[in-house]
Amino acid sequence: MEQSIIFQQIADFWTNDMPFNQLLGLKITHFNCQESEIRFKWQDKLIGNPIQKILHGGVTASALDLAGGVVAAANIIDQLDDLSPESIQQSLRKLGTIDLRTDFLRPGRGKEFFATAKIIRSGNKVAVARMELHNEKNDHIAFGTGTYMVG
Amino acid sequence: MEQSIIFQQIADFWTNDMPFNQLLGLKITHFNCQESEIRFKWQDKLIGNPIQKILHGGVTASALDLAGGVVAAANIIDQLDDLSPESIQQSLRKLGTIDLRTDFLRPGRGKEFFATAKIIRSGNKVAVARMELHNEKNDHIAFGTGTYMVG
Amino acid sequence: MEQSIIFQQIADFWTNDMPFNQLLGLKITHFNCQESEIRFKWQDKLIGNPIQKILHGGVTASALDLAGGVVAAANIIDQLDDLSPESIQQSLRKLGTIDLRTDFLRPGRGKEFFATAKIIRSGNKVAVARMELHNEKNDHIAFGTGTYMVG
Amino acid sequence: MEQSIIFQQIADFWTNDMPFNQLLGLKITHFNCQESEIRFKWQDKLIGNPIQKILHGGVTASALDLAGGVVAAANIIDQLDDLSPESIQQSLRKLGTIDLRTDFLRPGRGKEFFATAKIIRSGNKVAVARMELHNEKNDHIAFGTGTYMVG
Repeated sequence: MEQSIIFQQIADFWTNDMPFNQLLGLKITHFNCQESEIRFKWQDKLIGNPIQKILHGGVTASALDLAGGVVAAANIIDQLDDLSPESIQQSLRKLGTIDLRTDFLRPGRGKEFFATAKIIRSGNKVAVARMELHNEKNDHIAFGTGTYMVG
Repeated sequence: MEQSIIFQQIADFWTNDMPFNQLLGLKITHFNCQESEIRFKWQDKLIGNPIQKILHGGVTASALDLAGGVVAAANIIDQLDDLSPESIQQSLRKLGTIDLRTDFLRPGRGKEFFATAKIIRSGNKVAVARMELHNEKNDHIAFGTGTYMVG
Repeated sequence: MEQSIIFQQIADFWTNDMPFNQLLGLKITHFNCQESEIRFKWQDKLIGNPIQKILHGGVTASALDLAGGVVAAANIIDQLDDLSPESIQQSLRKLGTIDLRTDFLRPGRGKEFFATAKIIRSGNKVAVARMELHNEKNDHIAFGTGTYMVG
Repeated sequence: MEQSIIFQQIADFWTNDMPFNQLLGLKITHFNCQESEIRFKWQDKLIGNPIQKILHGGVTASALDLAGGVVAAANIIDQLDDLSPESIQQSLRKLGTIDLRTDFLRPGRGKEFFATAKIIRSGNKVAVARMELHNEKNDHIAFGTGTYMVG
């Protein structure tokens, strides 16, 4: 099976069958070993401050963690010789966030949000990604850095 | 109005009227200028990894951010001379998370979870808190550090 | 006095009269409210690993902190109406690093190193900058994020 | 050779033969798989702010990184079956700081400083430690968190 098809299947599975991603409406629109994009729309249930009507900081952290996590997952799969479903599923068990830092730059306001990640350190044990969150007007809402276990 | 009553009202409001806290089931059980405790129960919708059935990292980050945020809020109110509802509401507009770091130590498994915060730097502009997440068996799941705007 | 002259004086003072910057050979080659550059040359005394002959992680952190700190200083001065030496000196007393994160990407090898900073959040109380360290071959050695008190 | 003797040899080597530790006067007074202590005395060359006469933030970061690094080193050695000098030296090549966060709580003033570390996550690939810096009056100057490659 080609890598691009595997990545598409993972994007579909994590978007449709991961309960918390579903709850927040996080959609994986694109990912590979270098970068990724997650989209989600404004919903009132994501409000963290009822007076100011802005996203809860935990929503921002969740989207950034997912954006970095899928790039880390791509790096795990990229190291595999055996691309059978069992091999892939087994290898993805190693994936885990070690630490995540979020820098909040502006209030989380908008109709739609885009979390993007770029890999900055890639290894056979640990991967590090930098993430950004923007809204549909391209206002820059947050930066993130995530360190992931990949081996 | 006494400070302890004000803190209770804020705990009730943030627990019952903050949409994202409601969605996740985060309850503020205790907070003051020094420390806080947030509780939440396991729910399948909080799953971030359907194979391993563990909390999404974003749930952990959300609970830690709230734990630190309420201690920061207490420090804002503690600086007020005027404890009228208008004054309190106005002053809490200043509250914001500047940055949040989460260190994930163990998989997020359990029936109930306890996020606690302790203030480590208190000022009239910025407060810093350290947070921990444990489950009902006292397994230590995560550490956090949050920097908050308070003035 | 023009802002650019003030910035040059600060660069000279911090390069020549700050003992730890002198000890490490850190030179401020450029800074304004948006960005900065710090340069330093390899010296054997900066070695943190005698077997591998690479920079100590603390050297990297020091250079990144300085790069972010001078951009934060520029933001303090940019808010001043009174640009007298007393006013500038008084205002710079507010400057302090709240927190600093360093992500180490590659071993610190090279003949000369360049730490650069860009402001990502600018306010009258807190400023946040992102930093990078490269060597003379443009190998990317480290990323940093610093949160600074500016008011 | 007993582990305690090996730890003592490493403490001596890193204190006496690591150029940057020598330059700053950092002494490893104690370390094992769980915790460590680093001491250093005030020296004018460590000043980062000539007006306020306080430690440069990079000195604090260097001491915290060393405190966490020696605990990580102990965890590498603890996994070895072969405790020959070649085996130890080979295994310590894996040691590296992945990321380091420093939270600055108070100005770095004092006659002597104590950096301590405690392990919070121990694995065969990655270790995480939390660190603190105090002065001789037990004033708490800084907190740190470091993530280390150990395998």
